[in-house]
Amino acid sequence: MHDSSFHQAATRSAEVEADLRLHPDRYRVLTGDRPTGALHLGHYFGTLANRVRLQDLGVQVLLVVADYQVITDRDDPGDLRASVLDLLADQLAAGIDPARTPVFAHSAVPALNQLLLPFLSLVSVAELERNPTVKDEVEATHGRTVSGLMLTYPVHQAADILFCGANLVPVGRDQLPHLEVTRDVARRFGARYSPVFEAPDALLSDTPLLLGLDGHKMSKSRGNTIRLRDDEDTTVRAVRGALTDGRRDITYEPATRPGVATLLELAALCTDRDPADLAVGLDGAAALKALVAEAVNERFRGLRARRRELAADPGYLLGVLADGNAHANALAQATLDQVREAMGTVYR
Amino acid sequence: MHDSSFHQAATRSAEVEADLRLHPDRYRVLTGDRPTGALHLGHYFGTLANRVRLQDLGVQVLLVVADYQVITDRDDPGDLRASVLDLLADQLAAGIDPARTPVFAHSAVPALNQLLLPFLSLVSVAELERNPTVKDEVEATHGRTVSGLMLTYPVHQAADILFCGANLVPVGRDQLPHLEVTRDVARRFGARYSPVFEAPDALLSDTPLLLGLDGHKMSKSRGNTIRLRDDEDTTVRAVRGALTDGRRDITYEPATRPGVATLLELAALCTDRDPADLAVGLDGAAALKALVAEAVNERFRGLRARRRELAADPGYLLGVLADGNAHANALAQATLDQVREAMGTVYR
Repeated sequence: MHDSSFHQAATRSAEVEADLRLHPDRYRVLTGDRPTGALHLGHYFGTLANRVRLQDLGVQVLLVVADYQVITDRDDPGDLRASVLDLLADQLAAGIDPARTPVFAHSAVPALNQLLLPFLSLVSVAELERNPTVKDEVEATHGRTVSGLMLTYPVHQAADILFCGANLVPVGRDQLPHLEVTRDVARRFGARYSPVFEAPDALLSDTPLLLGLDGHKMSKSRGNTIRLRDDEDTTVRAVRGALTDGRRDITYEPATRPGVATLLELAALCTDRDPADLAVGLDGAAALKALVAEAVNERFRGLRARRRELAADPGYLLGVLADGNAHANALAQATLDQVREAMGTVYR
Repeated sequence: MHDSSFHQAATRSAEVEADLRLHPDRYRVLTGDRPTGALHLGHYFGTLANRVRLQDLGVQVLLVVADYQVITDRDDPGDLRASVLDLLADQLAAGIDPARTPVFAHSAVPALNQLLLPFLSLVSVAELERNPTVKDEVEATHGRTVSGLMLTYPVHQAADILFCGANLVPVGRDQLPHLEVTRDVARRFGARYSPVFEAPDALLSDTPLLLGLDGHKMSKSRGNTIRLRDDEDTTVRAVRGALTDGRRDITYEPATRPGVATLLELAALCTDRDPADLAVGLDGAAALKALVAEAVNERFRGLRARRRELAADPGYLLGVLADGNAHANALAQATLDQVREAMGTVYR
């Protein structure tokens, strides 16, 4: 039912991508992650590398550590402090520069979270219940209870995006319905009170999906990943265990040889080469795997060295987060002041 | 389906009422109002007089001006500043002493509002949808869209009550399901993280329901009220327009003579006398109405004089609110720190 506006948001992406290079100063990007553990290569090539690229183009990027999102679909958030430190180390090692790109935690920005209240008044329960992304997430709970936090999460995401005036949000196609809620909230707030918020555009990723070493979606819980933090030996072992097929010749045929294709794609991403070219002359799965492991280890050698240094200095990482939290609080306070003015809840 | 626990919360009321007089220092009460305009006598006898009584017993009372609740079921919040000033003037004129009883606004306490997020993770959508109070409110919208804020309001009320450690909440019987959500949140937070919150008790009112001058529920929108701010002439006119019956003799028979009974009850509340005694010797509706108007004007003469002074000094009223907001923010910040500690979202 949202197709036309999804299409609208999506088709802007190519246009925006071109404009980004010309006018990076016109864009402000909000993106982030749930702190559920160390990031893997799927995260790196899917989202993290793109963030660093945007930052280095000169775009103002803000990164949220979505710690409250961890409890939308699980009872036990685990060791959040450790997960947050892992996430920070991964991001900074990948090239996020905290002097340009603030990193902040949901739980540390009350004025951002307060926006959930007025925003919830602008969205109906029926809209939330038929939101395709919420529906998918509800189905993924396999009959477990759906919490109030899960149902309202798209509205909290609206607060994330709008509190800092972000006008561009990198999303996968499956996340477009969530972004549509943000666009609705921005427009409806403007119609009801005053135009405080701009409806953000989607920046759709054109990165091909990197599958896991077993041919399924890369996911920590499947154990089919290579993590940024893994050392070279672990990487070699993980690649050796990857699923291939019985054929000795190596060819890039994704439809009929998915295991081999996934490995070639991984090596291609790491070396910025074409997967079919990499296959030429390779003799057998062992040779392929040696090439892939070396490609990964070569590509991530510098990142991993930086990551080790960062992980050894939690005080520095927490200082980065404290600075980002302060930055986010100042932005959120200014936005909340505008919202109060617009709604007439200024009592002085 | 909640009957047993409602019963449990309700039957504690008599016990608590007795203990209140012995140990007022053991209780902390959170209560408040939506700022939707000047309060009327129904509010006064239903809730406001009781708050002043609790305050004067030595109980710590906190009053919330629930400005975000105004937008749960209406698009236009109206002139909130004017409504808040009206509400403050009514409360202080009625005897609320801001030196003992802080008065604060929802919209001014971000750390309180942030509690909505972790609390929403402890309540299921199904529980919210079958909450009888929410159901009633949804029905009262007459098919209008139900906003996310209305569905989640009981959880926001949990934040109101729990942020300040209130252990006693004056409620009408119809509000018990809302309080049950607060009790669930307090218990579940304790079970999942650590026992930061105490489940509050209900303090059920034993004040008889005061009907409006047309025999229906007293309500600003029906125009059947006498407001605290009304002057004596307005009161006389309003009582003159009240619904009675054709009989010349005046008797207290609520079942068969509801209009006359309502007027007698109003005079009885104002004079602390028995409605049947007041009826004795009265000859005709005009005599009854003169007695009622005089009883109201006599009872509220002092309050109304104080109210006029207060209303003439908005700077003072806003200062009271600013002090209350500062008090509430300090409490909310301390509670949020405990919540962060319990959930492991402390990054330092």
